[in-house]
Amino acid sequence: MLIKPDPGLPRLTRAVSGVDHLGNTQEIRVVEERPLTIYLNAQEIVTAMTIGDYPEYLAVGYLRNQGMLLPDDVITAVEFEEDVETVVVRTKRKTDYEEKLKKKTRTSGCAVGTVFGDMMDGIDAVNLPQTKLRTSWLYALAKQINTMPSLYLEAGAIHGSVLCQGDKPLVYMEDVGRHNAVDKIAGWMVLEGQSAGDKIMYTTGRLTSEMVIKTALMGIPALVSRSGFTAWGVEIARQVNMTLIGRMRGQRFICLSGESRMIRDADLGRVADEPAKSARKGGTK
Amino acid sequence: MLIKPDPGLPRLTRAVSGVDHLGNTQEIRVVEERPLTIYLNAQEIVTAMTIGDYPEYLAVGYLRNQGMLLPDDVITAVEFEEDVETVVVRTKRKTDYEEKLKKKTRTSGCAVGTVFGDMMDGIDAVNLPQTKLRTSWLYALAKQINTMPSLYLEAGAIHGSVLCQGDKPLVYMEDVGRHNAVDKIAGWMVLEGQSAGDKIMYTTGRLTSEMVIKTALMGIPALVSRSGFTAWGVEIARQVNMTLIGRMRGQRFICLSGESRMIRDADLGRVADEPAKSARKGGTK
Repeated sequence: MLIKPDPGLPRLTRAVSGVDHLGNTQEIRVVEERPLTIYLNAQEIVTAMTIGDYPEYLAVGYLRNQGMLLPDDVITAVEFEEDVETVVVRTKRKTDYEEKLKKKTRTSGCAVGTVFGDMMDGIDAVNLPQTKLRTSWLYALAKQINTMPSLYLEAGAIHGSVLCQGDKPLVYMEDVGRHNAVDKIAGWMVLEGQSAGDKIMYTTGRLTSEMVIKTALMGIPALVSRSGFTAWGVEIARQVNMTLIGRMRGQRFICLSGESRMIRDADLGRVADEPAKSARKGGTK
Repeated sequence: MLIKPDPGLPRLTRAVSGVDHLGNTQEIRVVEERPLTIYLNAQEIVTAMTIGDYPEYLAVGYLRNQGMLLPDDVITAVEFEEDVETVVVRTKRKTDYEEKLKKKTRTSGCAVGTVFGDMMDGIDAVNLPQTKLRTSWLYALAKQINTMPSLYLEAGAIHGSVLCQGDKPLVYMEDVGRHNAVDKIAGWMVLEGQSAGDKIMYTTGRLTSEMVIKTALMGIPALVSRSGFTAWGVEIARQVNMTLIGRMRGQRFICLSGESRMIRDADLGRVADEPAKSARKGGTK
């Protein structure tokens, strides 16, 4: 595994005290949220709230997933200035997204909860490879991911996304927003020159339209979640021939799109059902 | 109770078929996501993804929570056009948020997951009333809310927020984004002329900085969640003297801010611990 969560990193959590239902004072480790302002060349693009690990991957992945960094752009520098909480991504191409930034305001759901707009651009052109997905991989991945030490297990209130290949988790990112976690993975793929067609995305978050669109635009043909899904998320997955798996817990899952690409090779008798006590909850705890 | 979820409403869910882990085809009721474009007078402000109930409350609450609709604005009309998925809010005052819309782009975390920027504006001026909070209310509210028929129990993948007063839930809103649910409550409060200082906000979502800020700006002095919290969410709650309760499940909860305003009058011996099977998960299932 190339990148694992590092729940012990002091920068990512803070001890917060509270009083419990019995009146006892408790110290709890809680995740941090910090602003990170992302620039593309001279232009300020966005300020994101993040736990603060892998700012360079977050910045590059955000810009790539917003379509501001093009597939053939040459990145000349990625500069993180910790004291001013800023990342500057520099490209050989001269960029100007003044107009796009204006448009985005008008079409994205920002504070209303979910995002829309430009993301639908390009979804018609997506042509995902018809990669097979083995159920034995799904169970092997879920077991490794759910038992791995993480900020989720340590502090909760966080989303996780894991880029996988076959039965191996490769890169496990966590963040306060589920989009941050996926964007950090996208940034890693760009900067490490990784292919997408042989990968699987595992996420703790719900399979809404925007999550399906983002994964499809990244070129990843399979998306798996412990959580539920929306009708539109399923519809888009079917449209782009993505293999979509929801509500994956213990032995159970439901395949909502791409059943013909599933290879059901797992021996269910050898897959433990999830013990209620140690179970991750849907999305966040 | 004034507004309850209506999980039976055909417009809010759709039957989606999938294949489960045993290879059996299953029909599942899944929540819809629809775009809703909000106008303030002649200006297009945002397109939000929503389940689609209470579009008028969502539009008014969104505009109020973004600071575009002022407390003393006179609303002359709220027009929902279902066929073009649009709400127009009209005010006596002439409005123009071209500049604000530009600025928001630069400072909000849209697709990165959580929102920031303008929301911090005004938080220093917040002066919440020092309303007491009884633990007997908390348990009574949780019991009523968790056992009430809802889209969450029917279809999952949804957030809920409930405006309460004492031990009574008043308005229970659900939506795909947790901000939508809160914004619909804000819209209801504006259009029904409701006071905030005697209310309690209960939410299924995490207590992040933006959720604490939004509730504080609405003037509501107590915020309760089943889910976890971030360090900054706790910090802001303490700054504005909000009573903040997290991880409320069965008998358990933790008070992170406002302990001096708590009245611990509940008889814990009479509060059932949450049965694992019927328990709501954190946030979403």
